[in-house]
Amino acid sequence: MQFSGKPQVLRRVSQVPSVLAFSQTAPDANRFGESIRILLRWKGSVYKAIWKDLLVYYALYYLLTILHNFVLGDDGKKAFMVLAKYCLRNSNSINLMIMLSFFTSTALQRLFTVQTMIPGTAKVITFYVMSLKPNLPEGPIIVEQFARWTVIAWILTFRVVCKPLRTMFPNMISLQVAGIIREKERLILERVETEHNTTPRALVVIDWMILLLKETSIHNRFTEKSNHLKSLDVVMSFKKSCGNTIKFATKNIPYALIQAAIIVVYTYGLMTLMARNFDDADSAGFMTGIVNYFPIIPSLQFFVFLVWLNFGRIAVNPFGTDEDDIDVKLLLETHIQDSYRLANLYAQDLESVFGAMPQKQYNEAPSS
Amino acid sequence: MQFSGKPQVLRRVSQVPSVLAFSQTAPDANRFGESIRILLRWKGSVYKAIWKDLLVYYALYYLLTILHNFVLGDDGKKAFMVLAKYCLRNSNSINLMIMLSFFTSTALQRLFTVQTMIPGTAKVITFYVMSLKPNLPEGPIIVEQFARWTVIAWILTFRVVCKPLRTMFPNMISLQVAGIIREKERLILERVETEHNTTPRALVVIDWMILLLKETSIHNRFTEKSNHLKSLDVVMSFKKSCGNTIKFATKNIPYALIQAAIIVVYTYGLMTLMARNFDDADSAGFMTGIVNYFPIIPSLQFFVFLVWLNFGRIAVNPFGTDEDDIDVKLLLETHIQDSYRLANLYAQDLESVFGAMPQKQYNEAPSS
Amino acid sequence: MQFSGKPQVLRRVSQVPSVLAFSQTAPDANRFGESIRILLRWKGSVYKAIWKDLLVYYALYYLLTILHNFVLGDDGKKAFMVLAKYCLRNSNSINLMIMLSFFTSTALQRLFTVQTMIPGTAKVITFYVMSLKPNLPEGPIIVEQFARWTVIAWILTFRVVCKPLRTMFPNMISLQVAGIIREKERLILERVETEHNTTPRALVVIDWMILLLKETSIHNRFTEKSNHLKSLDVVMSFKKSCGNTIKFATKNIPYALIQAAIIVVYTYGLMTLMARNFDDADSAGFMTGIVNYFPIIPSLQFFVFLVWLNFGRIAVNPFGTDEDDIDVKLLLETHIQDSYRLANLYAQDLESVFGAMPQKQYNEAPSS
Amino acid sequence: MQFSGKPQVLRRVSQVPSVLAFSQTAPDANRFGESIRILLRWKGSVYKAIWKDLLVYYALYYLLTILHNFVLGDDGKKAFMVLAKYCLRNSNSINLMIMLSFFTSTALQRLFTVQTMIPGTAKVITFYVMSLKPNLPEGPIIVEQFARWTVIAWILTFRVVCKPLRTMFPNMISLQVAGIIREKERLILERVETEHNTTPRALVVIDWMILLLKETSIHNRFTEKSNHLKSLDVVMSFKKSCGNTIKFATKNIPYALIQAAIIVVYTYGLMTLMARNFDDADSAGFMTGIVNYFPIIPSLQFFVFLVWLNFGRIAVNPFGTDEDDIDVKLLLETHIQDSYRLANLYAQDLESVFGAMPQKQYNEAPSS
Amino acid sequence: MQFSGKPQVLRRVSQVPSVLAFSQTAPDANRFGESIRILLRWKGSVYKAIWKDLLVYYALYYLLTILHNFVLGDDGKKAFMVLAKYCLRNSNSINLMIMLSFFTSTALQRLFTVQTMIPGTAKVITFYVMSLKPNLPEGPIIVEQFARWTVIAWILTFRVVCKPLRTMFPNMISLQVAGIIREKERLILERVETEHNTTPRALVVIDWMILLLKETSIHNRFTEKSNHLKSLDVVMSFKKSCGNTIKFATKNIPYALIQAAIIVVYTYGLMTLMARNFDDADSAGFMTGIVNYFPIIPSLQFFVFLVWLNFGRIAVNPFGTDEDDIDVKLLLETHIQDSYRLANLYAQDLESVFGAMPQKQYNEAPSS
Repeated sequence: MQFSGKPQVLRRVSQVPSVLAFSQTAPDANRFGESIRILLRWKGSVYKAIWKDLLVYYALYYLLTILHNFVLGDDGKKAFMVLAKYCLRNSNSINLMIMLSFFTSTALQRLFTVQTMIPGTAKVITFYVMSLKPNLPEGPIIVEQFARWTVIAWILTFRVVCKPLRTMFPNMISLQVAGIIREKERLILERVETEHNTTPRALVVIDWMILLLKETSIHNRFTEKSNHLKSLDVVMSFKKSCGNTIKFATKNIPYALIQAAIIVVYTYGLMTLMARNFDDADSAGFMTGIVNYFPIIPSLQFFVFLVWLNFGRIAVNPFGTDEDDIDVKLLLETHIQDSYRLANLYAQDLESVFGAMPQKQYNEAPSS
Repeated sequence: MQFSGKPQVLRRVSQVPSVLAFSQTAPDANRFGESIRILLRWKGSVYKAIWKDLLVYYALYYLLTILHNFVLGDDGKKAFMVLAKYCLRNSNSINLMIMLSFFTSTALQRLFTVQTMIPGTAKVITFYVMSLKPNLPEGPIIVEQFARWTVIAWILTFRVVCKPLRTMFPNMISLQVAGIIREKERLILERVETEHNTTPRALVVIDWMILLLKETSIHNRFTEKSNHLKSLDVVMSFKKSCGNTIKFATKNIPYALIQAAIIVVYTYGLMTLMARNFDDADSAGFMTGIVNYFPIIPSLQFFVFLVWLNFGRIAVNPFGTDEDDIDVKLLLETHIQDSYRLANLYAQDLESVFGAMPQKQYNEAPSS
Repeated sequence: MQFSGKPQVLRRVSQVPSVLAFSQTAPDANRFGESIRILLRWKGSVYKAIWKDLLVYYALYYLLTILHNFVLGDDGKKAFMVLAKYCLRNSNSINLMIMLSFFTSTALQRLFTVQTMIPGTAKVITFYVMSLKPNLPEGPIIVEQFARWTVIAWILTFRVVCKPLRTMFPNMISLQVAGIIREKERLILERVETEHNTTPRALVVIDWMILLLKETSIHNRFTEKSNHLKSLDVVMSFKKSCGNTIKFATKNIPYALIQAAIIVVYTYGLMTLMARNFDDADSAGFMTGIVNYFPIIPSLQFFVFLVWLNFGRIAVNPFGTDEDDIDVKLLLETHIQDSYRLANLYAQDLESVFGAMPQKQYNEAPSS
Repeated sequence: MQFSGKPQVLRRVSQVPSVLAFSQTAPDANRFGESIRILLRWKGSVYKAIWKDLLVYYALYYLLTILHNFVLGDDGKKAFMVLAKYCLRNSNSINLMIMLSFFTSTALQRLFTVQTMIPGTAKVITFYVMSLKPNLPEGPIIVEQFARWTVIAWILTFRVVCKPLRTMFPNMISLQVAGIIREKERLILERVETEHNTTPRALVVIDWMILLLKETSIHNRFTEKSNHLKSLDVVMSFKKSCGNTIKFATKNIPYALIQAAIIVVYTYGLMTLMARNFDDADSAGFMTGIVNYFPIIPSLQFFVFLVWLNFGRIAVNPFGTDEDDIDVKLLLETHIQDSYRLANLYAQDLESVFGAMPQKQYNEAPSS
Repeated sequence: MQFSGKPQVLRRVSQVPSVLAFSQTAPDANRFGESIRILLRWKGSVYKAIWKDLLVYYALYYLLTILHNFVLGDDGKKAFMVLAKYCLRNSNSINLMIMLSFFTSTALQRLFTVQTMIPGTAKVITFYVMSLKPNLPEGPIIVEQFARWTVIAWILTFRVVCKPLRTMFPNMISLQVAGIIREKERLILERVETEHNTTPRALVVIDWMILLLKETSIHNRFTEKSNHLKSLDVVMSFKKSCGNTIKFATKNIPYALIQAAIIVVYTYGLMTLMARNFDDADSAGFMTGIVNYFPIIPSLQFFVFLVWLNFGRIAVNPFGTDEDDIDVKLLLETHIQDSYRLANLYAQDLESVFGAMPQKQYNEAPSS
């Protein structure tokens, strides 16, 4: 089994995986001062997500302040203040929290669902490998075919929903160059998905897997006849997961809902730009400064909305290039490594790992 | 296996399916300016969903403005303003967000449920095909029967819940013309669902599938006896999915809930038409214009309600003709293609796909 | 198999079932004017659900108006207005939406759960019929017993939770008269559920089914030995569904929660009766009329609460006589028809349905 | 099989169970006047749940009224009124509905989950009984052992989480006296759960069940070899349910959350005691009476909070002694009766129930 | 099977486990005065969770009071009061309850999910032990291997997500010292997770388990051939649970969401520090004291937010060192004890537990 292009596929992961994973666990809640440490982190932070929006927001805010203080005449100032009052009152009466809440929680809920139902290749490969008779001379060959096809079906599924993977493998040739598919397979896959055939490519590869199961059964390579349908069951679950992944990515939150959420939040933002409380400013000199130059408190609500909208939008497309998105490339690498390792289990036994095992003396001659 | 009428059934899909699917994935959240691109899209947009309602709304709004400014006398104007104030105060005190939220999230939740439990034909056909002994001379015949009946059961289920499909196949004759059912089958199906027999037609077809399983078992066509009940299990799951689809579409959100949501939202809308803040208008000249002609901010809340109501109503009937609805016709086409492909797997083997496989030299004579 | 009393059991359903079902699907959202059509429907409407409550409400409202305008003296009028103001302010400050929301969504959620877990008889009968050896002379007899007992277990379960069914079958004799149970079975069922035996009757019938499975296994009537436990598994699932249905209906939303919801909504209603805004009435002459005679806007919130409470209460008891309740009688009829049809499958084959099948020439002699 | 102490265990249930269950179904929603009937019920009512709290509340309220009217001097009265105003304003601005809502709905959701996952003994006993060869002479003995051990495992599980059951069976001796465990079993169970062995007792009993399955398999008492693992599977599910029940009861809603909810609701209650609106009282003479002696409307919100808190707290501990709690003693009785009945199925057949069955003439000699 | 280091691993639990568990069940709701008992508990209480934050809060509060009363001049006082008024108004208009609600309920929901899907070792070990032929001489050896490897896979999984466990076992040597892994196994495990191999260590151990299953099948140690795939299925579920645990801990609530929640709550807290109502203070002398020194009521809302934030943050990292976290060390101990006990079941039978059983006389010679 050679994925000749493996180095091209793999990203450099120079850390031990468990360390990497450990560093991603969430911080404790009970340590005092932990909160400050959390607030200061930049990577994956809320600041990183919305600093551009905030920049634009404050730029516009100061522009309006300058307009009011230095550009407008007395009439203009009065009109400005009337408009500000109008915006202030209306901004308080709009209730869009619940709509946003609905949008974001729906999106996040679907994200969690998709995270648990992402198709995995390990189970389907392990089942096939273990349901075969041991020590068949052709065993490693068919095991390699099955493992590779599983990975191909996985890739062809995620190419549909994941932009980075699509960029990585723009066509079937690129998959062949990466050593993942063979010449003959590429030719077949290029023929499907043309004008008159709407079968997704992944399904074609899963058909190959089903045919391989059939061949294995006909030529008596399963330890038991009934293993055929058991393996088929596992393959069908794998197929269903692939289908669900595509279904999730394409039949998602309605587009109009995203639009509506964006419209509402940005309209609110524009309103708070103007919604200055000049009554406050009049009450004391230094308040004028606060109202004109440090709109921290009035903009806090907008900040909350913006953050929330952001989470919802990230959750809508979990296979994209956002920072919190599922790293499909890393997943791919893992699945390729796994398929190697699991296919190798066919030819391995405990003795090849540990040397002589204590139970060796009791071994029967293997029954086939 | 000939669905002679296939061209009639199929819609023109001139694109490669994975490209089509890819174009339906949601946009990234992190790219700056992406928000603007999202806002400008028309297809599937929120504007398309509610522009008619908004048009009527603004027409009525300007009518009232004209009435106030140019038609009414002084007494009328005063009464108008009193009424406006009355509406304004009351519109603020009504809290219907949570009710709408409940309606829409319930409807969307059920929609997501139905999306995952839509019956699929692939699993049931694959299982049957693979549980048969290979190379039976009668194999292709019975596989064709089983695959076709599965598709018929699927169609007869969706005819019940999906208006477009019902329009496409108004009666059993139309199904025969489309090459999906045979003469004899049509005669039987026309006899059921008459005055004294309340069995849904889909159940009759599933009975045929069960009888075919029995025949297959009696005449020893399964590789193993136990395959009979395994296939039966898969058929029963298929039957349950069909039943659930009908149950979902007919025992849905209570009708009265939809009515109540519509009444509440439109009453709110009518109230905001009148709820003009003439105090604002008095404070500065240009405000009169805003209040009379640009009711953007006061109507924002109504816009939110309207959009939300709309999502709920679309979700209530996912098999209809709305833009975000499940495209049952496309699904049908896919299922027909799939049934072809999967039935063909019976006669295929890897060699007919790839030519000689490396494991060929080890093949035993097929065991039956 | 004779349910001699079948005509008594069946309701007249003069329509084709798929037409009936189709007419129950929800309306489209996108058609303009559809909203008006929805609003005008009476059957299953929100008006039908609450018109009595609204009638009482408006009657009381006008009574109070008459009291204020024509009965009370000046002191009384002043006191009335003070009280009205007091009610008005307090009615605004009460926040009971979320409590109602909680009550109704909990109730509806449980309703959806119960809708999907209602026990069905089809699977358990089909499995038993198909797991038997074909062409046993005693086959039709035992199949009839099993199918009938399944239906009896179903009826005895729903008699516990469903008032209409309990009215229909007040005792075991009525079931015998309807031809559903036999003399001997009735005698046994009448003996259970007496002072010292707390076994529900449905469990006794399911015990019979288990014993029949055992007999079938002992006398070698299953095609394979392992079918015994498989059928037992399906029967146990059926039993669990029956148990869950009773558990749902009897361990439901706490009674106190229903009381609390009713108290809160009706107290709110009484408060809005008095909560008249006489400040509005003073501002213009015609407003007096609106405040006194057309309390549409102030009562809108109460209307929303009332509707919502109503949904919750209907959902609490889904097997009752409310219009949106599950029609258990219709279900019963369907299950009886199904049990006939499925039991008949034992003696049927495809040839008796379609005449000679193309695969006939390849048939082996049936293996038993 | 003799639970010699059965009469001690059973509670008097003088009603037929289905009547009992029927009386617990929820009332209809559509009957007019039904609401009043619901409001008047005392058993399980909201009044019963909170009357003590309300009593204390009104006692304190009147105490404060007396203090204000008859004890305080003019300065005191003024201070009292200032404080009342302060409380009034602050009580309106606190938003704790959503927190309570979160607490109660989380608690209720977990309650519904636990209701559906309570371990049942019926399935595990039925499976074992039916997987044995029929007519073994030792059959009734081992069936009795298995059934009794299942019940013991159930009791030992619920003793951990349910105070009433723990009171009923304070130690192993009490279980022996009740005829549920044997001398030898008691000695073993008393030895576990001591200083150095942290195995829960229920696990020890389940180990016995597993060993009995092994013995049954070794001595060839299953009809088929594969029944061993199938029965084991059912036993493992039973074990998992037991474990989940304990996990639910001990890893529940965080204690601090209950505290926080109580603190917040009672602080709110104290505040509303003082939050009297003396402005209202001034407006008319009779209002003074309402404000001082009939604080129905201001306390309505507190009533809502109190009721809600109460539901949450009941749901947190569903196995306690609250009126709406799961009646574990009744459950125990049912499980003991069931275990009798199901164990008896081993020696029963349809003939012993009904006399000669029509299919008798076709019976083969039983195959073993 | 010797975990030589067991004493090091075990924590002292001097109580009987069921007593321990019982003491953790929640209190009853219906007993009067129970509420007070709940409020007074310190262990696991809300006070313990937030007393540090409250301390800081009140310290700052009094600092500001001192500043206002004794440090500032008249101008300063006036500015202070203006700022206080500004903060007061703005603090009322911010609506962050729903955002916090969303954060906390999402986190708690995921916590409940993870609690139910934590991998358990009992099922996988029991299944393997029971699927073996009885009385094999090598039985105890391979059973010990399998049980130990299961525990190792469990530990290696939780080392990744649980800080306390990682501290306990910082490297592979520490596991060897604790007697959990063998020399040879350590060497292999140290080689993986290096620069070029990203396979998590737990997967390597699960591979060993799969190889052991294969060996057991090849050397005919299962009672039935089909037990191989059944055991494999259970092992694959175990593997999936391990994977899900890591996935949950590392792909959790987005980091930015935690940041946003903290920012919002602490900003709100800072605002309430200043948001003093000096209008109240002016109305009566003693009110000045309340406003300046007993800010109980204004800070109640902040208290609610703080508590809520705290729950969310604890729920985000359930394997940490917080008091309500899952006690992974205790779990580890339980799993080690269980693996002992279950592995011992292989060599045990009922007779070794109870002495001669009544069914002994009927025993066949064991069939193998």
